[in-house]
Amino acid sequence: MRVAVDAMGGDKAPDEIVEGALRASNELGIDITLVGKEDVIAPLLSSKPSQRHIEIIHTPEIIAMDEHPATAVRKKKDSSIVRGLELLKEGKADAFVSAGNSGAVMAASLFVLGRCTGIDRPAIGTIIPGKEGPVLLIDAGANVDPEPVHLLQFAFMGSIYAREVMRIGNPKVGLLSNGEEETKGNKLTLQAHKLLKGSNLNFQGNVEGRDVTKGTVHVIVTDGFTGNVVLKTVEGVAEDLVSIIREEITSGILNKVGALILQGAFRKVAQKLDYAEYGGAPLLGVRGNVFIAHGRSNAKAIKNAIRLAHEAASHRIPKLISDNNIIVTGKEMFQQDL
Amino acid sequence: MRVAVDAMGGDKAPDEIVEGALRASNELGIDITLVGKEDVIAPLLSSKPSQRHIEIIHTPEIIAMDEHPATAVRKKKDSSIVRGLELLKEGKADAFVSAGNSGAVMAASLFVLGRCTGIDRPAIGTIIPGKEGPVLLIDAGANVDPEPVHLLQFAFMGSIYAREVMRIGNPKVGLLSNGEEETKGNKLTLQAHKLLKGSNLNFQGNVEGRDVTKGTVHVIVTDGFTGNVVLKTVEGVAEDLVSIIREEITSGILNKVGALILQGAFRKVAQKLDYAEYGGAPLLGVRGNVFIAHGRSNAKAIKNAIRLAHEAASHRIPKLISDNNIIVTGKEMFQQDL
Repeated sequence: MRVAVDAMGGDKAPDEIVEGALRASNELGIDITLVGKEDVIAPLLSSKPSQRHIEIIHTPEIIAMDEHPATAVRKKKDSSIVRGLELLKEGKADAFVSAGNSGAVMAASLFVLGRCTGIDRPAIGTIIPGKEGPVLLIDAGANVDPEPVHLLQFAFMGSIYAREVMRIGNPKVGLLSNGEEETKGNKLTLQAHKLLKGSNLNFQGNVEGRDVTKGTVHVIVTDGFTGNVVLKTVEGVAEDLVSIIREEITSGILNKVGALILQGAFRKVAQKLDYAEYGGAPLLGVRGNVFIAHGRSNAKAIKNAIRLAHEAASHRIPKLISDNNIIVTGKEMFQQDL
Repeated sequence: MRVAVDAMGGDKAPDEIVEGALRASNELGIDITLVGKEDVIAPLLSSKPSQRHIEIIHTPEIIAMDEHPATAVRKKKDSSIVRGLELLKEGKADAFVSAGNSGAVMAASLFVLGRCTGIDRPAIGTIIPGKEGPVLLIDAGANVDPEPVHLLQFAFMGSIYAREVMRIGNPKVGLLSNGEEETKGNKLTLQAHKLLKGSNLNFQGNVEGRDVTKGTVHVIVTDGFTGNVVLKTVEGVAEDLVSIIREEITSGILNKVGALILQGAFRKVAQKLDYAEYGGAPLLGVRGNVFIAHGRSNAKAIKNAIRLAHEAASHRIPKLISDNNIIVTGKEMFQQDL
């Protein structure tokens, strides 16, 4: 198993990306191909100890974070994103990780790898640390205006990922809506509800915003617009709350003593909330193991994304999605039990 | 100024509602009309000291929390919700507060009070405690499938409310989307963005999920589906985080000592996050001051909702909305500066 890593993508590229790859290589023994400008990557590697599991593929072009995805992918065939995905296609790598322009990663994945059988729209699945266990939110941003049947496809892909990689038997699926009752929802979710109810998935009905971090279901299905807003809301609330608490508990000497006593406890809480612990988000529905890491990824986040990509690759999720999917129209779709 | 209160609505009705009304009356000196079953309300009042500012209007019918809103409103003309709103219409009260079936409150408000001039769809504005100050999120659940022009109307109503009641000069308006760039959004928000840009509102462009609790803008505009999901996500994350922290800091004797030292600080944080501090959410766009309180409202939340309703009533928001609104089609809509 070999993981290709986009060395040029992300707010902290290339330094933190290369450092994360080094850690994954040295600490976890994972074979890694760093894709990007060799003259930039090589010096970062040579100053470090052992890099026996790392190779470099030189690509002269870079797709910037703010470039128009489709245009950039069409023009920059020698970019780290396009070339990294071609390594997957050619069987020279088993998974690809990028913290770069996520729109470009999606566009290039469709272009280079193509879609799984029966999947119209690939989707991003993001793991959110729930109180009672991790929750896979799908779609977290790939499709802003999906049709109801696409939400059914997201639920199907999310269930396979949850079963295989998150190791949850018969994963519970919830549809994100504005109320638990079946009658609650907008046009999209009301129709998607019917499709999900008629499927063989372990559908639990509608869930609400407060279920996102509860862990009452394992897979939460939503459109990419709502999913993206919700994901960033969760991150924002957690950050703000931690900063409000920090301000309060460090005002005054006595409070500082209390804070000192509790620093171990606070560290555990911070760890539970740290996105870097969870690595990347799988792009599900393309013919290859593609992982999108947070644009802000530091070395630790990249190391964990590589670990996750490496583990997921062995489950051959794209093949499972293609093989179990009996094409696309509602009730006929999921004849086989998951 | 007199506030009519639905004594029969909410998970904790009638006890906590009546208690909240008593506190608003005794502590704040607000004149209150409790609307509901007299035989239930009167005994709750008679056991208490002074109730000089409180009167009761007897209504024999109750609309339950899970009843179909439009049907219930049509059938139950003698319910506390319908009669309470008629008091507004008849000028016998200046504001109405209910923690009951919010769909029924909206339906009855449209039916009894009607819409403000130029407003197609009334919307719920909810105040979220932001890090840098309160944020008005509109729509928080009234319209699950609005058109772009409705989002413009929400922004207009939210700006008036923020200026008058929240006392923010020239309030900043943001459009909730899946990215800050103007090109990010679904069909609805891409079109709404253009309308907002062409208006005289203080439009700051798109904002993201993490801005909801930051307070970077004063008014965040969104459809009622996304708004409801986001609102409940914020509540859920805050609750879960507080409970995770509580678990960690109370495990072990030393931690308990630290927690004891910090209890004052924690209380301050809890207060900042307590929805009960913020009272109710205004239903904007109907011809009357209607406030929807949280279904879980306790006496404190009801007291604060009554305080807010009482204060808002003096600003005559519905009249300001009707008078300043130069009808409905995009660019012509907001000729006057706010």
